[in-house]
Amino acid sequence: MKTGFFKVKTREEVWDEFQRFPLLPSEEIHIRQALSRVLAEPIVANEDLPAFIRSTVDGYAVRAKDTFGASESLPSLLEITGEVGMGETPAFELRNGKAARIPTGGMIPTGADSVVMVEYTEELDQRSVAVSRSVAPLENVVRPGDDFRAGQEVLQAGKRLRAQEIGLLAGLGQQSIRVRQKPKVAIISTGDEIVPMEQEPRPGDLRDINSHSLAAMVVNWGGEPVQLGLAPDQFQAMKEKCQEALNQADICLISGGSSVGTRDLTLEVLGSFNDSAVLVHGVAISPGKPTLLVQTSEKAFWGLPGHVASAMVVFQVLVRPFMSHLSGTTLSLGEGRPVQARLSRNVASKQGRDDFIRVKLREKDGNLEADPIFGESALISTLVHADGLVRIHRHAEGLYAGEVVEVIGI
Amino acid sequence: MKTGFFKVKTREEVWDEFQRFPLLPSEEIHIRQALSRVLAEPIVANEDLPAFIRSTVDGYAVRAKDTFGASESLPSLLEITGEVGMGETPAFELRNGKAARIPTGGMIPTGADSVVMVEYTEELDQRSVAVSRSVAPLENVVRPGDDFRAGQEVLQAGKRLRAQEIGLLAGLGQQSIRVRQKPKVAIISTGDEIVPMEQEPRPGDLRDINSHSLAAMVVNWGGEPVQLGLAPDQFQAMKEKCQEALNQADICLISGGSSVGTRDLTLEVLGSFNDSAVLVHGVAISPGKPTLLVQTSEKAFWGLPGHVASAMVVFQVLVRPFMSHLSGTTLSLGEGRPVQARLSRNVASKQGRDDFIRVKLREKDGNLEADPIFGESALISTLVHADGLVRIHRHAEGLYAGEVVEVIGI
Repeated sequence: MKTGFFKVKTREEVWDEFQRFPLLPSEEIHIRQALSRVLAEPIVANEDLPAFIRSTVDGYAVRAKDTFGASESLPSLLEITGEVGMGETPAFELRNGKAARIPTGGMIPTGADSVVMVEYTEELDQRSVAVSRSVAPLENVVRPGDDFRAGQEVLQAGKRLRAQEIGLLAGLGQQSIRVRQKPKVAIISTGDEIVPMEQEPRPGDLRDINSHSLAAMVVNWGGEPVQLGLAPDQFQAMKEKCQEALNQADICLISGGSSVGTRDLTLEVLGSFNDSAVLVHGVAISPGKPTLLVQTSEKAFWGLPGHVASAMVVFQVLVRPFMSHLSGTTLSLGEGRPVQARLSRNVASKQGRDDFIRVKLREKDGNLEADPIFGESALISTLVHADGLVRIHRHAEGLYAGEVVEVIGI
Repeated sequence: MKTGFFKVKTREEVWDEFQRFPLLPSEEIHIRQALSRVLAEPIVANEDLPAFIRSTVDGYAVRAKDTFGASESLPSLLEITGEVGMGETPAFELRNGKAARIPTGGMIPTGADSVVMVEYTEELDQRSVAVSRSVAPLENVVRPGDDFRAGQEVLQAGKRLRAQEIGLLAGLGQQSIRVRQKPKVAIISTGDEIVPMEQEPRPGDLRDINSHSLAAMVVNWGGEPVQLGLAPDQFQAMKEKCQEALNQADICLISGGSSVGTRDLTLEVLGSFNDSAVLVHGVAISPGKPTLLVQTSEKAFWGLPGHVASAMVVFQVLVRPFMSHLSGTTLSLGEGRPVQARLSRNVASKQGRDDFIRVKLREKDGNLEADPIFGESALISTLVHADGLVRIHRHAEGLYAGEVVEVIGI
């Protein structure tokens, strides 16, 4: 194992290490399964969308200039020359002074360039209609390619698909697409005091929390958890678990080992794989300092703190962006944005590390206030009560009551 | 069918109608499947969490008063009286002037009240340790019930479960819980110009977009879509589709029928069910005015606009909160919060209706700017380019460039 000299890395330095890991392979899926998946290739429109010129309202297809100057007191009188049926190509051409009935979505007949809404018309008899408002050319119509043009790149590789992108793909008739495989994330808990959730703990034992909270976070951020259960604090047993993780997953999260002995053992086990390299050994964040990142072949082993709240914070701050990296995507400006709130009291912080404090949000006079939640990282209640995290920058000595802070959801 | 006199309702008046619909039935599930599900009953802790007093650090369990006044230049010397093993109940009691080695997570021996971190100690020999910093009573320990106490309601009914709640349930050994069933949402598209995505459209036809974008939104907000495909603009065929929806789903979304004829037909079909009542017939929002809400038994039929962007906006503004109502939940302050951004240009708006304009977010000098996206609601591209929606209140005449607005994700 390459180890060399290690110093605690900043959050951003850890992110830089992600470049050593290649993107996940791609796979072909139906767009029914595509929500939140990440495109592996750009999508190019194979045809114009929409494919024909159509009305966006119920009314009368006209030549706009025939309506110029029309008003309620002085309507334009047009002759009704036909009716456009839904899903039909009009068999007639529209000439000067004529109008054709048209439903929303109907194809604009040749010769017409706009549609007057039915609300501004009155049929005087079967053959003539009075138009009481003028329209501009192209008013109330959409033209071929107004959405997207044939040959245009409509979605970029790396795009995480939302409902509207899936709608667009349906509109283009793209039933299946290539996306990045979901990251498979193996989860192992360590610590001789930890028992499976199903088991009654003896005095001194604790039920395994991390396996379950981390698995839920993996699902939440688009991965597939592989729960491998507990590894005892013993070289051979832990090595077998890690080998299982290597065989089944792209990422392995080993939580626990907050005690020095277990931490050393985890490192020893990971170091025993032939081609492993320790990329991160300590991160300048709190909670979460003892975090490890070890690369073995193209797989990533994350050693997370054992304290339940610390493990979740490290997941949010480091593992979640790592999963995004493997999928070749980044969050858009609209997704997972922090919420702004006013801090309700002073919070002191040590310089030299990013502090992630938990906060509860509260509405006050129509604004959001963030109440810091103090308490040990060993307590899950600190996160159950929290609505999010606030980062105190490593160069700051703390935050003052009344400051506007950004609250990251968790 | 009860219809009576109808006037266009505000968004809030539509929300009020939701009270007529009962909550969904509950079901029992394993916590592995519980992410984002909504609790049907409160969770009461059956035991203290944690169940015993334990150390949160590696170090020495001590009596705090034995360390008072300790410093690097004048350390307290304590006699090492034993070692606490992981997952063990210490067999000894700690007396004055003594210390016991203890790992993170280890049980504090009787007599001790705090733990000195190993960083502030030096073992002089096997029997004695020098402590160079004082600790307060209860420092570096968590006590029984520090997370939650036995008998305490730890989660309320209606809580949407996040990763930390699932962790908490695991910690309490609660393997299965009662949650609200996921709302089953049938989706029907209407309009004689619409063809299934799989079919090559003839001139004048369009591929069905709404079925797919709405199904993705249903999944996104915790429902189960039931795609029923297309219903032709014809009474009997549409009635059969609606009956199918009634049999299979809790909610039915019928999109399309933006043309007056189809809209009337939808209403006629829904009215033909024995016990149906029209609750909403027109909403003061744009896009989305022609929205319908009809109750049949305990099921809800939503008539959504046919224009692709309008249907999605109505889903976000009305159907999504309806799904939350059926699940007995509301969004917490940390979830789905709007993002604040500065509007980059003036947007005019008609009074008397809430306008939902689409915006694209952009970073400028470290702040977010929102660029309005103008364009017909018939175009899906307006939403593909958008990061969110901005609501212009029905009493406002518009918004000015430079105003800070709230952007709702879509």
